[in-house]
Amino acid sequence: MTKVAILGFGVVGSGVAEVITQNGASIAEKTAQALELKYILDVRDFPDSPFADKIIKDFAIIEGDPEVDVVVETIGGAKVALDFTRRALAAGKSVVSSNKELVAQHGHELLELAKANGVSYLFEASVGGGIPILHPLSQCLTANKLSEVRGILNGTTNYILTHMIGTGLSFEEALKEAQARGYAEHDPTADVEGLDACRKICILASIAFGRHVYPNQVPTKGITQVTLADVSYANAAGMKVKLLGRALRQGDKVMAYVAPHLVRDANPLAGVEDVFNAITVRGNAIGDVMFYGRGAGKLPTASAVVADVIDASQHRKTSRYLSWSEGGEDYVLGTETLKSQWFLRLNSSLKELECLGNVMPLGRPGAPEEEVGVITEAMTQVELEKRLGGRTPLSVIRVLDESADLA
Amino acid sequence: MTKVAILGFGVVGSGVAEVITQNGASIAEKTAQALELKYILDVRDFPDSPFADKIIKDFAIIEGDPEVDVVVETIGGAKVALDFTRRALAAGKSVVSSNKELVAQHGHELLELAKANGVSYLFEASVGGGIPILHPLSQCLTANKLSEVRGILNGTTNYILTHMIGTGLSFEEALKEAQARGYAEHDPTADVEGLDACRKICILASIAFGRHVYPNQVPTKGITQVTLADVSYANAAGMKVKLLGRALRQGDKVMAYVAPHLVRDANPLAGVEDVFNAITVRGNAIGDVMFYGRGAGKLPTASAVVADVIDASQHRKTSRYLSWSEGGEDYVLGTETLKSQWFLRLNSSLKELECLGNVMPLGRPGAPEEEVGVITEAMTQVELEKRLGGRTPLSVIRVLDESADLA
Repeated sequence: MTKVAILGFGVVGSGVAEVITQNGASIAEKTAQALELKYILDVRDFPDSPFADKIIKDFAIIEGDPEVDVVVETIGGAKVALDFTRRALAAGKSVVSSNKELVAQHGHELLELAKANGVSYLFEASVGGGIPILHPLSQCLTANKLSEVRGILNGTTNYILTHMIGTGLSFEEALKEAQARGYAEHDPTADVEGLDACRKICILASIAFGRHVYPNQVPTKGITQVTLADVSYANAAGMKVKLLGRALRQGDKVMAYVAPHLVRDANPLAGVEDVFNAITVRGNAIGDVMFYGRGAGKLPTASAVVADVIDASQHRKTSRYLSWSEGGEDYVLGTETLKSQWFLRLNSSLKELECLGNVMPLGRPGAPEEEVGVITEAMTQVELEKRLGGRTPLSVIRVLDESADLA
Repeated sequence: MTKVAILGFGVVGSGVAEVITQNGASIAEKTAQALELKYILDVRDFPDSPFADKIIKDFAIIEGDPEVDVVVETIGGAKVALDFTRRALAAGKSVVSSNKELVAQHGHELLELAKANGVSYLFEASVGGGIPILHPLSQCLTANKLSEVRGILNGTTNYILTHMIGTGLSFEEALKEAQARGYAEHDPTADVEGLDACRKICILASIAFGRHVYPNQVPTKGITQVTLADVSYANAAGMKVKLLGRALRQGDKVMAYVAPHLVRDANPLAGVEDVFNAITVRGNAIGDVMFYGRGAGKLPTASAVVADVIDASQHRKTSRYLSWSEGGEDYVLGTETLKSQWFLRLNSSLKELECLGNVMPLGRPGAPEEEVGVITEAMTQVELEKRLGGRTPLSVIRVLDESADLA
């Protein structure tokens, strides 16, 4: 019998309580491990919840209870969650988390602390919601030298982009629809500005390439500047606009960034719609492999959390798998050297764009007469700006390179 | 240091030797486990191979060498491979296999034997080539009650179907092209008749639902009767013809079968092209999750084998994860009760098809005047045959139901 405490009874925390309870019998049968929910820590009261009798307010009770084997941290943020995680690990309890902000910022420290205390710190749910990705990445692909991880890591922005494409909404209209459906927060900044995707690509890069990549090392651009006009040009050219997080091995360093991309329809990432996420991993033996599913939501995320709880409980008192080294200031490269084709939208004539070299002109229905949309040759951003010489395009979006295996 | 012996120096076996050698340093760094290839067993000589000095002919040497921790079985078939696997497990060595025929037929027995000897029997490479699927299915999705596993499990048939669709080839022409490219064997029976997919869905069903499903319990239909006309009708209706293996939980029993299906383009499985494989798993918490990648090939398959070797070596002398109970005659249901819409192609008039109830007529370019293609209402195969009353359609293909989460 493994006794579990949940920190934070929000969407994910309550999903974890539900899954442990509703699927308890099937879990016990499959794993020969029964899970028992002993405490739920929250500052609020939940008098009408079936779990009301488990709610406590004082973390010290959990910290001091030797019966608690696994602590589930679904508080979020990097303040009180950091404090409680440190204390739980130090008290010899494994910690399972869905908190990408905390892992992206303090993963290395917390993994080391777990190791020092002979317990596990697991966070499959922090990337891709319920999609198994960290576990396969750290275990099943070990035989490969990995060269790249890329993915659609944020369901909210993918929902917005899909609905701009599908129903011709502006960014603002699609955001409102996402909020009305509960797919976007009242304050959508972390999603639409790419911060959430940035945290997730940090975690993926840290596992894939072995050293901690910190959010402040990753150039991050969201989708607030993507217009319906951009989406229409892309569509007419057989492409989709997708917000991608990418991490690429560059010798013994890593290049990582988050930005909108034009992705050709033949690439499986282009077909990932609505709130779904997909992550592609490229290795020298396996080629490309893609993991696809619901990247968020109460039960999918809880599914990943509970799988980690089971994993931790089956390996009590031994640290599990995950680890990466400390990062470094020089370890992460910016995108200055990354060549790609570029989509540009400008008020200009094609003739005036001869400075850019060969360009492929695109069309879109209803474009104003003075507007052009083009795709350039492959070049770095610096080269692009040099060739543009002072002209400021209405839109500049990277085109995903297709040297890829799957692409 | 983990010492490894490879049984069978064919495509996969030589890929395993290559990956262990070429990625050895990176594996040792990531896992703190060095792998050393000690023996390769094959009846043939390979005087020009860089591994020539490791080739031996007598399995007893491996069986009797206490230094050998892990035996990789890439012989194939269920005769000598069965004998060697039993003997290796009995000798206290973990066995890693890519042999779907052996696992589908003898998995339960061999897993029990591994457990009794405190070692592992692992076979990630037997399904989906390099795609991590058995591992995520048995570990990462444990918190779910699973209801279905479905997938494109055979790259050869998917290549043939894709090229019928893409370039208007007949089945026979597309098969020849696949053979010319090395994607289909000289004797393609196991692929095109669906036997390979059948073995793989048996393994997936056994893991997902906990009891052994045997190949002879699974109704299996391949793609030899799929015509270019069928593919054209499907295409015109926004669907693709795909060979799917499916296993569905039905109370405490399982329904499993292999057959071609019409899959709507909106379903991610429809976009899986060429030799790629994809497997969708449906659970009550996670919804649908899909795993996608190269389902065959030397290095992708070797990637999965070597990951299992690392896993076994990290858990020497403890049985790892996988297990399922013995099957049973009554455990696996036929497809008699499975309702679905049906694609029919007949020499008939629509008027004569009123017996079928509501049908959706389809068109295709160049269809003979007397031919009709239709999609029926959802019904069982028995009901369909009753309504057809003696008429024999030119083609009958199930339409994948779209009650699904992803679909």
